[in-house]
Amino acid sequence: MKLDLNADLGEGFGAWRIGDDAAMLGIVTTANVACGLHAGDPAIMRATVLAAKDRGVAVGAHPGYADLAGFGRRAWPGMTETDIENLVAYQTGAFAGICALAGHPMTHVKTHGAMANAANDDDGLAMAVGRAIRAVDPSLAYFVMPGTPTERAAEKLGLRPIREIYADRTYADSFNLTPRSRHDAMIHDPDEALERILRFVSEGRLVSQSGKVLQTGIDSVCVHGDTPVAVAMAQRLRTGLEAAGIAVSA
Amino acid sequence: MKLDLNADLGEGFGAWRIGDDAAMLGIVTTANVACGLHAGDPAIMRATVLAAKDRGVAVGAHPGYADLAGFGRRAWPGMTETDIENLVAYQTGAFAGICALAGHPMTHVKTHGAMANAANDDDGLAMAVGRAIRAVDPSLAYFVMPGTPTERAAEKLGLRPIREIYADRTYADSFNLTPRSRHDAMIHDPDEALERILRFVSEGRLVSQSGKVLQTGIDSVCVHGDTPVAVAMAQRLRTGLEAAGIAVSA
Amino acid sequence: MKLDLNADLGEGFGAWRIGDDAAMLGIVTTANVACGLHAGDPAIMRATVLAAKDRGVAVGAHPGYADLAGFGRRAWPGMTETDIENLVAYQTGAFAGICALAGHPMTHVKTHGAMANAANDDDGLAMAVGRAIRAVDPSLAYFVMPGTPTERAAEKLGLRPIREIYADRTYADSFNLTPRSRHDAMIHDPDEALERILRFVSEGRLVSQSGKVLQTGIDSVCVHGDTPVAVAMAQRLRTGLEAAGIAVSA
Amino acid sequence: MKLDLNADLGEGFGAWRIGDDAAMLGIVTTANVACGLHAGDPAIMRATVLAAKDRGVAVGAHPGYADLAGFGRRAWPGMTETDIENLVAYQTGAFAGICALAGHPMTHVKTHGAMANAANDDDGLAMAVGRAIRAVDPSLAYFVMPGTPTERAAEKLGLRPIREIYADRTYADSFNLTPRSRHDAMIHDPDEALERILRFVSEGRLVSQSGKVLQTGIDSVCVHGDTPVAVAMAQRLRTGLEAAGIAVSA
Repeated sequence: MKLDLNADLGEGFGAWRIGDDAAMLGIVTTANVACGLHAGDPAIMRATVLAAKDRGVAVGAHPGYADLAGFGRRAWPGMTETDIENLVAYQTGAFAGICALAGHPMTHVKTHGAMANAANDDDGLAMAVGRAIRAVDPSLAYFVMPGTPTERAAEKLGLRPIREIYADRTYADSFNLTPRSRHDAMIHDPDEALERILRFVSEGRLVSQSGKVLQTGIDSVCVHGDTPVAVAMAQRLRTGLEAAGIAVSA
Repeated sequence: MKLDLNADLGEGFGAWRIGDDAAMLGIVTTANVACGLHAGDPAIMRATVLAAKDRGVAVGAHPGYADLAGFGRRAWPGMTETDIENLVAYQTGAFAGICALAGHPMTHVKTHGAMANAANDDDGLAMAVGRAIRAVDPSLAYFVMPGTPTERAAEKLGLRPIREIYADRTYADSFNLTPRSRHDAMIHDPDEALERILRFVSEGRLVSQSGKVLQTGIDSVCVHGDTPVAVAMAQRLRTGLEAAGIAVSA
Repeated sequence: MKLDLNADLGEGFGAWRIGDDAAMLGIVTTANVACGLHAGDPAIMRATVLAAKDRGVAVGAHPGYADLAGFGRRAWPGMTETDIENLVAYQTGAFAGICALAGHPMTHVKTHGAMANAANDDDGLAMAVGRAIRAVDPSLAYFVMPGTPTERAAEKLGLRPIREIYADRTYADSFNLTPRSRHDAMIHDPDEALERILRFVSEGRLVSQSGKVLQTGIDSVCVHGDTPVAVAMAQRLRTGLEAAGIAVSA
Repeated sequence: MKLDLNADLGEGFGAWRIGDDAAMLGIVTTANVACGLHAGDPAIMRATVLAAKDRGVAVGAHPGYADLAGFGRRAWPGMTETDIENLVAYQTGAFAGICALAGHPMTHVKTHGAMANAANDDDGLAMAVGRAIRAVDPSLAYFVMPGTPTERAAEKLGLRPIREIYADRTYADSFNLTPRSRHDAMIHDPDEALERILRFVSEGRLVSQSGKVLQTGIDSVCVHGDTPVAVAMAQRLRTGLEAAGIAVSA
C-alpha cells in the first residue's frame, strides 16, 4: 500500500511569500508549482523546482486563472473551454521551460483554486484541461477529483489520472470540495485530518458532508502549504500514514 | 538567393491591439509572437499562431521583460544572467504550449526590445538567452544580430543562428541598433528601407551610422508591425526583394 | 433645452491606445477618464485631462474593476459593497490627484463596464458607489441610469445626479443596458442612434426592448469612443442635436 | 524633546502580506501606507488606515514606482520629472480617497524605495515629488532626507518638511542611504540601532559611513516593518527613546 503526499508550493510573487516551502519539501513527495498567473514568477518557479530536485520531490504545473489580486480563488463565470485550454497550455508549457532549465522533469498537472473547482463541476471544462495537458505532453499525469468530471476527462483522453483527496477539506455531494465560504469547508485539526485519510484509504470510499458515498481508490493526498498549521498537519499525516504501514512516495 | 521576412506580431493585450496583424501575415514569412509578459496573452497568442498557420507563416517565441506598462522597451539595469534564463525559458515554454494546442510548430526564438538590446551588448546575457533556448528545445533557431554577442552565443552553444537585419532601423558601431531615443534610429521611407536591404544583401556587409563595416551574410529581414507605415513598408520590401530576384521564404 | 454629450476616454495602457481621443474631444462636452485599474495609467490620465482642458471639455473619474486583462467588462460575482467603496474611492482620489496636477477640476464620477452594470442592478452596490463619491468630494455629480438603483442612491445620498442615456445601446426591462452578449445590445447606425435620442428627449421617456416605458428627464447622452463608428456617431449626434435646437454643453 | 517613530505598512497585495502590521501599529506613531503600485491594494489600504486610526497612529501616502514584481525597489533609469509627478499625484490622491472613506486624515507623503533614492539624489526629481504633493494638498508634510535634494525641495516649495533618519540603515556621503546591495547597508542589531539614534539626536548631526558630517535636526525615525527583527527593533527603539527622556509622538 502506498500513497503520494502533495502540496501547492512556490505561491509567492516578487518579494512576497506564502507558506514555509522549505519545511514542506522535507515532508511531501510531490509539489504542485504555481505558474505565474495567480501566483509564482519565473524566479520563484525555478527556485522551487531546484529545491524540490534537491529533496527528491516530484514537480508538476499548478495552473490557475490569471488573477494575481485574487490568488486564483475568485470564480469567473464567463470562462470558456478555449480560455481554459489556453491558460493550461500556456502555464504548463512555461513550467516545462523552467523545469528544463532546472534539469528536473515535470510529472503532472494539477489545476488551482477556482479553475480546479470549475473543472471538477463541468465536463466541458474538465476536457479542456485535459486537452491542454495532452497537447503539451501526453505522458503527463492529470490530477483528478474522484467521481467528478476531471476523472472522466482523464479516462476519455487516455491521460494517466492521479486520484486525489484533500486532507484538510470536506466534500460536497458532487464530490467536489465544499466551498471555502462555508463554515465546514476546512479541517484544522491534524489528528482529525489523519483519521479521515486513514478511513478513506481503508474503506476505499469518499463520504460527502451529507453522507453521500463514492467507492474509489486514492493515489495522492493534498495538504495545503499556506495555512498556519500547514507544516504540523503535513508532518502528522506523513508520520501517521507511515505508522499505519502506508509507504509515502510519489 | 533567398531571404526570410519577419515581423513581431500578437502584440496586443486583453482588449488592446497594436498593428494590422492580418495584413502583415499576408506579407511576411515568419512571425515572432509576444509571450504575455511585455505584450500578448494566451488568447492572443493562440489566435496569432492559428492565423500564421492558415497563411503558412512560421512562428517563434518573442520573449521580453515582464513589463506590460513599458511594452518591454524600458532598459532594466539589474538584470542578471539567471533572470534572463528564467524569462526566456518561461516564455518560450509557454509559447511551445500554445503552439502545441494550435498544431503549428515553433521554429525559433527572437528576444524583444530592451532584452534584445541587452543581449546584443553583453556576452553573458547573450549566452543566458541561448542556454534557455537550448534547454527548452535545442532544435530551435536563435535570431541573432550579426557581429554582436548573440551571434557568438549561438555558435558557442551549437544553436542554429538566424542572422537578422532591420529594414527600418539604423546601426551603431557595435552593430546593435541605434537606440530609439536618437533621431536617426528609424527609417520611415519604404523605398529607402528597400534600397538599404538590397545593398546589404548585394554587398554582404552591414554599415553603421558612422561608417563602420561588418562583412556578414543575412538570413532574415525584420519589418516592424506597429508603425503607421508598417504594412506599406513590408509590402514594398516583399515586392522589391522579389523584383530583385530574391526568393522570400522562411 | 440643453444636453451634455459624454464619452469614455483615456482608455489606453502603456503603449496601447483605444479610440481616437483627439477627435472625440472636439465633439463631446464631457469626458469620463479611465483611472488605471481597467485601463488608463497616470501618464495617459494626465495627457487626457490636459487635452480636455485645452478643448474646454469637463472631466470626471471613470472607475472600474481592477481587471486590465478584461478591460473591466467581466462580471465579478463576489464583489461586496466594501470592495466597491474601496475601488471607487481609490480611483476617484487618484483622478483628483491627476486633475490637481493638470489644473482642470473633476466634475463627476461615472462607473465603467461590469461595475456600472452591477451598480445599476443592485441598491447596495449603487449606494456603495455613492458613499465613495461623497467621501472623496460631496460636490461631485454621480452619473446615474434613470429608473435604476443608481438614480435612487444619488437621491438618498444628496449627490447631484446626471441622468444618462446611451446613444448606441438598447435597454432591458430593468432600464439597465441590454448585455453586450445579446445581438440587439448595440446600435451601429448613427442616424438610428440620433433618431432614438431625439425621441427620448421629446417624449421624456425611455423605452426598453420589450416596450416597457419609464418617464424620465435626461441630462447627458453617452457615445462610445472605442468603436469603428465612434467619431462618425458622435459627430452625427452633435450636429443632429444642434439642428434640432438642443444646446450641447456640459 | 520629542521624536516621531514611523514605519512603512500595508505592504501586502491580494493574499500576500509582509511584516506584522498589527504589532508595529502598537509601537510606531506614524504609518506610511503603500498605495497600490509597488505594494498595497484598495482593500489593504483601507484596513491599514482603519487599524492606524484605532491605535491613534498618523497615516501618510507611501508612493513608489509601478513595479509590483520588484516591490518598487528596482532603479528605473528613464524616469522623468513628469513621470514622478504623475506617479506621486496618482497615488497620493488614491490614498486621500481611501482616507476619506476611513475617516482618518492623511498627514504626509513619503516616497518608497527606488523612487525615494532617486529623489534624494536629484533636485529635479525631488521638486517633482514636491509639486505633486503641493498639487494634491499643500498642507501635507513632505518626508525628506536631511542634506539631500528632498530637503531643499520642501523648502523651495513651502511644504512642511519632516526630516527623517533610518534606524537600521547606514548613510553614503551624499547623506542618501547606502544602497541595499552593499554589505554595510543594514543594521540588524536593535541595541546598535538605538545607540546610533540617540547619538544622532544628542549630537544633532548625521555621519556617513566614510565619516562625512551633516549638522541637522531630526523629526522622525524610520523603522522597517518587513525584516525578521522589525518588531523587536521598533520596540527597542521606542523603549530606549522614552528611557532617554524623549517623547515619542507623531
